[in-house]
Amino acid sequence: MSGNDTLARLAAVIESRRPERGGDPAKSYVARLFVRGEDAILKKIGEEATEVVLAAKGGERERIVAEVADLWFHTLVALAQHGLAPADVLAELERREGLSGLDEYALRKVVQREGGQP
Amino acid sequence: MSGNDTLARLAAVIESRRPERGGDPAKSYVARLFVRGEDAILKKIGEEATEVVLAAKGGERERIVAEVADLWFHTLVALAQHGLAPADVLAELERREGLSGLDEYALRKVVQREGGQP
Amino acid sequence: MSGNDTLARLAAVIESRRPERGGDPAKSYVARLFVRGEDAILKKIGEEATEVVLAAKGGERERIVAEVADLWFHTLVALAQHGLAPADVLAELERREGLSGLDEYALRKVVQREGGQP
Amino acid sequence: MSGNDTLARLAAVIESRRPERGGDPAKSYVARLFVRGEDAILKKIGEEATEVVLAAKGGERERIVAEVADLWFHTLVALAQHGLAPADVLAELERREGLSGLDEYALRKVVQREGGQP
Repeated sequence: MSGNDTLARLAAVIESRRPERGGDPAKSYVARLFVRGEDAILKKIGEEATEVVLAAKGGERERIVAEVADLWFHTLVALAQHGLAPADVLAELERREGLSGLDEYALRKVVQREGGQP
Repeated sequence: MSGNDTLARLAAVIESRRPERGGDPAKSYVARLFVRGEDAILKKIGEEATEVVLAAKGGERERIVAEVADLWFHTLVALAQHGLAPADVLAELERREGLSGLDEYALRKVVQREGGQP
Repeated sequence: MSGNDTLARLAAVIESRRPERGGDPAKSYVARLFVRGEDAILKKIGEEATEVVLAAKGGERERIVAEVADLWFHTLVALAQHGLAPADVLAELERREGLSGLDEYALRKVVQREGGQP
Repeated sequence: MSGNDTLARLAAVIESRRPERGGDPAKSYVARLFVRGEDAILKKIGEEATEVVLAAKGGERERIVAEVADLWFHTLVALAQHGLAPADVLAELERREGLSGLDEYALRKVVQREGGQP
């Protein structure tokens, strides 16, 4: 299964946990997040990003993988909350790559900000 | 590589930008990040996570997509820095789902922390 | 001069940089932040918090001091944006301490969340 | 200590909670943080910074004050962990102000990064 499929399947699970679709906060962590509301979801993104930073500084590979998984998972919940899917993000990443090389795109933004030549 | 594995393709581009593989900081944003080192990469993860939070609070869908794309992209660079690939993270997410339902897994952790019943 | 006075003086400088009070974005970083708006200010808080984490992990004392200074400074700007002053935050910290010991206050919250005994 | 130096007084409380000075993790939240170690402290800084951002976006003044109080408090713990005191940070802020105006100092850094004129 491709990575795109994995993310799409996770997003489908998340969608099915919306309270209005029968998600039960007593049984589902995601349903509980939806019930608690957007700030609860976004707070987790801040937390998990910090965990990724700490895991990376610690250099423990398993912990890095686990924390990035947590971070991606909570971004999927945030996307769902706004009616967005991982496919939207993947399309954006592909669009940038297709335009001019994602990498050069990012570099142009940096160079523009730094006001110098690359 | 199949066209439907966007993250794996991005990771391959990122790998090719390592300075020891010919990545040129004058031409590539990713090569520049690798040269600046881990803290520069991790700083971006903190920044982009905050941008996701702000975009979500603003409710602008295009901005949310763009900021999540930025966040995922920089986590791919952090993974690469530790010899890890998006497939490692996707496998972890699939493992959790396979074990017991990713959602119930997360809920158990929360319930355990809260010390109560779900 | 007490720490309270230092923070109050910084807050007064920040207040004087509001564009409606003559703060000039061409000359003042704070005026520029006010003009760019709340998201620009809050983005800096996320960035500087990550910088504090990275500085602490690096163990460089001068860098830790500089990054905490940056973080506190930008929280002062965020407070000002909402008509709040450092004295409000210091009063809240004193209130908690006066109530029951700030430390025990925090512990009770944690124990409650963890559902166990301290 | 003078009553008008809140941060110094809090720092003294925090110091007294070090396990090697008799701080008891069963009774003190700060002692518990020290025992759990640096990552636990730094994780809280990332969390509380995100809470400040969310509180500011919510526009609730009491919540903003409470979250900035939490953020400052945890930065005091991080400083203590490295043998630093709030006075070090306040001195740095005063030094910048004394050098050239804290505000112009920050602006010069931004202008330098942006590569343009203020």
